Amino acid sequence: MTYCLALKLDEGLICLSDTRTNAGVDNISKYKKMFTWNVPGERVICMMTAGNLAVTQAVMSLLQENIDNPKEGIDTLYTAPSMFRVAEIVADAMRVVMGQYGAGLAAAGESAASTIIVAGQRVGGRQRLFLVYSAGNFIEAGDDTPFFQIGENKYGKPILDRVIEPATPLATGIVAALLSMDSTLRSNLSVGMPLDLAVMEADTFQFDQQRRIDENDAGYRNLSNAWSEAIRASFDDMVKFSV
Amino acid sequence: MTYCLALKLDEGLICLSDTRTNAGVDNISKYKKMFTWNVPGERVICMMTAGNLAVTQAVMSLLQENIDNPKEGIDTLYTAPSMFRVAEIVADAMRVVMGQYGAGLAAAGESAASTIIVAGQRVGGRQRLFLVYSAGNFIEAGDDTPFFQIGENKYGKPILDRVIEPATPLATGIVAALLSMDSTLRSNLSVGMPLDLAVMEADTFQFDQQRRIDENDAGYRNLSNAWSEAIRASFDDMVKFSV
Repeated sequence: MTYCLALKLDEGLICLSDTRTNAGVDNISKYKKMFTWNVPGERVICMMTAGNLAVTQAVMSLLQENIDNPKEGIDTLYTAPSMFRVAEIVADAMRVVMGQYGAGLAAAGESAASTIIVAGQRVGGRQRLFLVYSAGNFIEAGDDTPFFQIGENKYGKPILDRVIEPATPLATGIVAALLSMDSTLRSNLSVGMPLDLAVMEADTFQFDQQRRIDENDAGYRNLSNAWSEAIRASFDDMVKFSV
Repeated sequence: MTYCLALKLDEGLICLSDTRTNAGVDNISKYKKMFTWNVPGERVICMMTAGNLAVTQAVMSLLQENIDNPKEGIDTLYTAPSMFRVAEIVADAMRVVMGQYGAGLAAAGESAASTIIVAGQRVGGRQRLFLVYSAGNFIEAGDDTPFFQIGENKYGKPILDRVIEPATPLATGIVAALLSMDSTLRSNLSVGMPLDLAVMEADTFQFDQQRRIDENDAGYRNLSNAWSEAIRASFDDMVKFSV
């Protein structure tokens, strides 16, 4: 399984993904679910994938192939004039790949279901956050829903429901994203460390943070332990209520 | 959807269920997912159901029918010599009902998947907690897994993972069960108030608590609000961590 989430806050975009996959034991340490493209000062794009590994890898490869071998009249992630167009390009690639693999996977009884989060900003436009489905349709996050989750999303949803709104500061959003991931890691073995974190402040057109967080990351460990103790202490405090 | 959970603690058994169903709008207020049987001082049984409503209702009706019209040589919930035998009787009823409905539901493309939590104690034995699956197989909760959840179980699992162990006091377990339900109610509209709560202290062979908790229940409202504030305060305290 997978757990990826993206927050669209007034101050910026936050993307966080785990790295565990069930595609094969020998593949675990090598598989990344976060993909990034950046022309500093001009455009910054971060995608995260969940679902059928062959499908999402094919979509990412197709997008990269079109960048590496550009064709006349074909928009790429680097030439798209807007983030909306970027989402369309991803959706088109999804449809192409599903057309290639969908019937075969269905015949084999395998699920082809896949989702891709597309986050970013192009100069001249605002930051935008999209969620592309297997059918190539997509939705956009607005102020009412300032976050998207894909994969094993339920364990980590309560904390986001409680604390995330567009005005949430970026630093607070990063902590919320990490705690949402922490709850998921504790409750579901198929989601695992290390984590990939990408932070794009609004209107900087770059990755202000882009790094891997592993088990030995002192900051993450301290946060995880402190949260565990705080939840435990809060809970102990609730026992006084007679219901 | 549904969310039901049962905790098996050293001090006793706790069962909690919501009451919302998608089987029909006009059915919501009438549908109960918790079913109880009690011979004070001799046996106490609580069951909770999730999944296909027709299937679980048929299982419950069959169990009750066998009590109301006993047949020679047929064990019922009131004559079974042990909780293990009670679980077997429920599993047998599940197989009978699945035999009647399974093929028709599959042909109609409907899921027949159903699960039943069976909790209780019979004099001469200890408290036991079982989970019966659609196929009529079942598992028992032990010290390593002192709780079962059925239905929409993921939102409410992190709090249980963090605080529940066999030695958890009964009053603490009730609070944990209610907060697990609270997280689920906040994150999933298909799980709804009122709640049914049943508490069986070990070796009392009775329901020490058995009641409905609705939106106006002051104790539940106070707990829910205090927990929300405590989570929020704990979270605000986490923002100091730089990760």
